[in-house]
Amino acid sequence: LGFVPQTEKALIERIRRQAQFPGRFVKTGIGDDCSVLRIPSRHEILVTTDFSLEGIHFRREWHLPESVGHRCLTRGLSDIASMGGDPIAAFLSLALPKALPQRWVDGFVRGLLQLAQTSKVTLAGGDIAQSPSGILADIVVLGSVPRGQAILRSTARVGDRIYVTGELGASAAVLDQLLSGRKKKLAPQKYPRYFFPQARVDVGRILRQRKLASAMIDVSDGLSTDLSHICDESEVGAEIFSQALPLGAVSQPRAAALNFALHGGDDYELLFTAPASKKIPSTVAGVRITEIGVINKRKGMLLMNESGRRTKLQAKGWQHFR
Amino acid sequence: LGFVPQTEKALIERIRRQAQFPGRFVKTGIGDDCSVLRIPSRHEILVTTDFSLEGIHFRREWHLPESVGHRCLTRGLSDIASMGGDPIAAFLSLALPKALPQRWVDGFVRGLLQLAQTSKVTLAGGDIAQSPSGILADIVVLGSVPRGQAILRSTARVGDRIYVTGELGASAAVLDQLLSGRKKKLAPQKYPRYFFPQARVDVGRILRQRKLASAMIDVSDGLSTDLSHICDESEVGAEIFSQALPLGAVSQPRAAALNFALHGGDDYELLFTAPASKKIPSTVAGVRITEIGVINKRKGMLLMNESGRRTKLQAKGWQHFR
Repeated sequence: LGFVPQTEKALIERIRRQAQFPGRFVKTGIGDDCSVLRIPSRHEILVTTDFSLEGIHFRREWHLPESVGHRCLTRGLSDIASMGGDPIAAFLSLALPKALPQRWVDGFVRGLLQLAQTSKVTLAGGDIAQSPSGILADIVVLGSVPRGQAILRSTARVGDRIYVTGELGASAAVLDQLLSGRKKKLAPQKYPRYFFPQARVDVGRILRQRKLASAMIDVSDGLSTDLSHICDESEVGAEIFSQALPLGAVSQPRAAALNFALHGGDDYELLFTAPASKKIPSTVAGVRITEIGVINKRKGMLLMNESGRRTKLQAKGWQHFR
Repeated sequence: LGFVPQTEKALIERIRRQAQFPGRFVKTGIGDDCSVLRIPSRHEILVTTDFSLEGIHFRREWHLPESVGHRCLTRGLSDIASMGGDPIAAFLSLALPKALPQRWVDGFVRGLLQLAQTSKVTLAGGDIAQSPSGILADIVVLGSVPRGQAILRSTARVGDRIYVTGELGASAAVLDQLLSGRKKKLAPQKYPRYFFPQARVDVGRILRQRKLASAMIDVSDGLSTDLSHICDESEVGAEIFSQALPLGAVSQPRAAALNFALHGGDDYELLFTAPASKKIPSTVAGVRITEIGVINKRKGMLLMNESGRRTKLQAKGWQHFR
């Protein structure tokens, strides 16, 4: 094992050069012990951290480095979106195995920085280390929200309607194809929602500004798991109408598409609740909004099918690469 | 590979219960998509991230889990200290191999939380994942500093004197013993500066409050490497007086002790510069302060020995576990 700071330093300089674009809130970025940021007054700070680990969250043979970098940042942006916040800065901790080609690192950084730029987020710091095995990334995203206005998981109320943005299950269907081994590689440009997902930052901000959502989370681990977090934290139950779910895996048989929509992950859509009295638009920032269920007093989650029969909905969770 | 959110959830709940102690600035801690923090008005935010990777930064056979948790947080606190900031909250991304005993995780969390509590830092969030191999931790520490008062690396001026807190090289001497293989284990209580290092947060804050330091960094990668960062960022050179260095490895031959002090890491002391006109106290917050050199116009670093002979001082860098 040999961790050589001179290599580390060269890599930091390389990233620093690429990361140079204006950041209104970043006073000191890459190159000091800490980054120094200024937050708009009367705002609170949002902080989220997310791992992207080779073999767990991505595989080098399936994912282009640009896609890995993009998805890495999307995970953090989506958490900021789910609070109704504005992302400000990202910090990247990156550990690399010795034998990794420089062009992989460059592709990864390019994918991450392209998304950072379009999202008006500054890459403001991080850490570089040698990895004992595999590529290890941890992304931190810092955002802001006007004081007291962050949309939490814990504030859903009985009677609230449940909504979701976009479609669910398309990413899980792609992953299923990769896992099946039928195809070794899929063309990223044919499956942008999986390889280059967009966090719903604009939708989250508008829902917060118009005070429409009572609780919110992003769908990263699958609807059933993420809905269970809202239920647990809000101490309520929920009922989902299977007929209403906006299915993303349209080329699949309905049962499979429904399964992907209920339990698949990596969609980065927003799942939110709103009082029945609130009029929720059918699109927000160009993204479709669908009512998919209702919050109940009785704990636990139910799934109601097209004939009105209710079954228990379990948080099956998202098994990355079983 | 099988990443099971239910296990993840149980672990998050376990940490959440242990992490519950008041945090003045943390409005929403563990359990939502983001943590929500409030920063004192007219303050800027400091952010730092640091990996602690098994096999790179620690070894399970050498380091008790409590020591690994403690050192993990110290790395972040020390970065906040080096800006003259006050640490506020920590975020822990932790990836664990499947076979890891629960008591290891408990020990790690205990070591981290004990230091968090004495440092008045709230563990406010993070991420849990399965690790493809080895224990992977990434610590984020967020701090605050009054606007415009963060002490940077880039503001050393020609003629400034160079100072260091405490002693240098004791940690490197311990690591050298471990690496030599002469002893398989060392008793942590006999080597607290290595196994349970304390970040110099109080010293950093006082230097900032009294406006004594012109530039500052913490000595985590070794004096020669960290001084080179100040020189690079400030576009200056430096000269170090070998006679003046406060040697920590006192039981070693002088040449070895000097080598550890110049190039050894993990000391978590503060290295700072101050104009010659400033009177620097010999102790700050109970910690000894030693003048060790001067900032020069001519780039590069020099080492002057007891007979006045100057040699080039190279940033040899810190090789963790060669």
